[in-house]
Amino acid sequence: MTHPRTLADIPTPALVIDLFAMERNIRTMEDYLSGGPCKLRPHFKAHKTPEIAKRQLAAGTCTGITVATVGEAEVAATFCDDILIANQVIGRDKAARVAELAKSIKIAVAIESELGLDQLSEAAQRTGATIGALVEVNIGFRAGTAPGEPAVALARRASDTAGVELQGLMGYAGHAAAMDDRTQREAAERSAIERLLASVAAVREAGLPCEIVSAGSTGTYDITTQMQGVTEIQAGSYVLMDTAYAKFGLPFEQAFWVQGTVVSRPSETRVTADCGHKSCTMDHGVPDMKDIEGASVMFLADEHAMIAVPPESTLKPGDPVAMWPSHIDPTINLHDVFYVVEGDRVVNVWPIEARGYREQRQPD
Amino acid sequence: MTHPRTLADIPTPALVIDLFAMERNIRTMEDYLSGGPCKLRPHFKAHKTPEIAKRQLAAGTCTGITVATVGEAEVAATFCDDILIANQVIGRDKAARVAELAKSIKIAVAIESELGLDQLSEAAQRTGATIGALVEVNIGFRAGTAPGEPAVALARRASDTAGVELQGLMGYAGHAAAMDDRTQREAAERSAIERLLASVAAVREAGLPCEIVSAGSTGTYDITTQMQGVTEIQAGSYVLMDTAYAKFGLPFEQAFWVQGTVVSRPSETRVTADCGHKSCTMDHGVPDMKDIEGASVMFLADEHAMIAVPPESTLKPGDPVAMWPSHIDPTINLHDVFYVVEGDRVVNVWPIEARGYREQRQPD
Repeated sequence: MTHPRTLADIPTPALVIDLFAMERNIRTMEDYLSGGPCKLRPHFKAHKTPEIAKRQLAAGTCTGITVATVGEAEVAATFCDDILIANQVIGRDKAARVAELAKSIKIAVAIESELGLDQLSEAAQRTGATIGALVEVNIGFRAGTAPGEPAVALARRASDTAGVELQGLMGYAGHAAAMDDRTQREAAERSAIERLLASVAAVREAGLPCEIVSAGSTGTYDITTQMQGVTEIQAGSYVLMDTAYAKFGLPFEQAFWVQGTVVSRPSETRVTADCGHKSCTMDHGVPDMKDIEGASVMFLADEHAMIAVPPESTLKPGDPVAMWPSHIDPTINLHDVFYVVEGDRVVNVWPIEARGYREQRQPD
Repeated sequence: MTHPRTLADIPTPALVIDLFAMERNIRTMEDYLSGGPCKLRPHFKAHKTPEIAKRQLAAGTCTGITVATVGEAEVAATFCDDILIANQVIGRDKAARVAELAKSIKIAVAIESELGLDQLSEAAQRTGATIGALVEVNIGFRAGTAPGEPAVALARRASDTAGVELQGLMGYAGHAAAMDDRTQREAAERSAIERLLASVAAVREAGLPCEIVSAGSTGTYDITTQMQGVTEIQAGSYVLMDTAYAKFGLPFEQAFWVQGTVVSRPSETRVTADCGHKSCTMDHGVPDMKDIEGASVMFLADEHAMIAVPPESTLKPGDPVAMWPSHIDPTINLHDVFYVVEGDRVVNVWPIEARGYREQRQPD
């Protein structure tokens, strides 16, 4: 596949990865986890890109891949044989797709309802495969069964269900992962994980298996890994980062950005570039400008970034600009490829294969 | 292509079009414009879907198609032979792609800089084609050359440039289109269009051609069309609408929504569905719930909609939910297809062919 040779040749707007920065992030996480009891199951939803996930897996401290959707699992199954769908799978069609994957790889699903469990069981029995189940305990806001007795009851139900194998528990404390203040974040994550671990103890006391305890995120990776009993963390953003996580002062570098081109200089103090919010989401705030002193993003329209510049700025139509996204996951989900650079040189183009909803792209 | 037979068979999250509502919107706009001097050049950026654009063009009050990007123009050129890129095209590669299209169809580009003009000229001369130029006048915030003498000077420059044909002027008053209050919106749009029309008069007084005067949007369509001298409006959202435009009390119906499935009921007063902001953007606010009395969207996470429900609600995992998006353009840009329904019956699946950045999907 031929591709643009230099940064200046990339058709804008586009996503660019600094390959060395990404590799440093992978190494930093590997060095942190190496030798410890807690492993990493990197979250594929952050970047949806096999070439990145393969490099994460190669680091050697990984148990497998975490995904958020069945479509992501189908893509991840092309390069990984141990996948956790850290999300409820609801619907017979989706359960059937999971069961199909379970014929050839190890795959587990977060469960919180009998409906979800029953649909997975039916699908598994039709294919003769076994689907792993992690009871999702509600330690945050999003979903999950209540900690304690309800979690034990669902775990027991799962262990009694044909075609399903109870493998452990998981929880996601989204409220903690989003707290800017380290002290607050640490307290919230610890308290949430303690609730999860109490349920783990109760499940084991009930004589049920609980091999996997999965939790955590980039924002809490060094808190969660210190909680004895958590076997793996689900961090994803660390590999490329964003400005929201950069505020946390983590040891990971921002390793990707949105490359754009100035298309207008409507006034002395403003330029307009071709990288609007169809190329860079604003759900965690406007992006930061990269490399251009004194410039700041005012807001993003559909196709345009409105950028404030000092009057003495020489920026003019045709000049390159670059923005650090505030939120990695949805920004990457807007694009079909990453342009991978070493300095100014484009060394590769990586498809964001699990972008969007894969089932919408099936010719069926 | 086989497709789901009923609404319940659609893999969620997904975009659904109410075909009859969409057709009523097209007819409402046609009835409004019919017999008047101002035509419609519907904006393709709103939906990026050829099957929708073809139905808009069939209404008979259209001059052609408006697009925002060269990639959209390449898709639109497969079904329309008169295209306006209502946006600056900057970069030699993009200019070359426009010149390639100009070999077989009528295509015009908004210009505001000599750089853009020169790049189009060079590209046109290489192919022997002629590219139309509309001087974009800055009557808002986004881009454009200053009204009056600078606009005349750029128009003169365009008319003297080989390979380029000056065809008229355009302007976009984005600040007016976004004003909720009708009186304020009308005053802002009128004042902006008057500035555009003053530049039109000045260009004509200078002996330069100005056949096309293109402006307006769904939010201002019935204001702009009343301004004598505007030859076409660029409305796009009217065909499917969104909740931001619905607040304006326009005569168009909300004709598309995001279909989801409940995956969790974490508390008596809340359910979680599988339609997060990777399926429905929040840049104009959270979506509204469709059809479910008393339910409202609290917020959207990446993959989850957190929905407040009354305690007596029977909503449970597996139940369908539907949300009216707040902003049509970026929401549609997240998906690969529309599921088209008549009542509960899926009658078609339409590819959102110009989704994302087409150049990223080219094999080279």
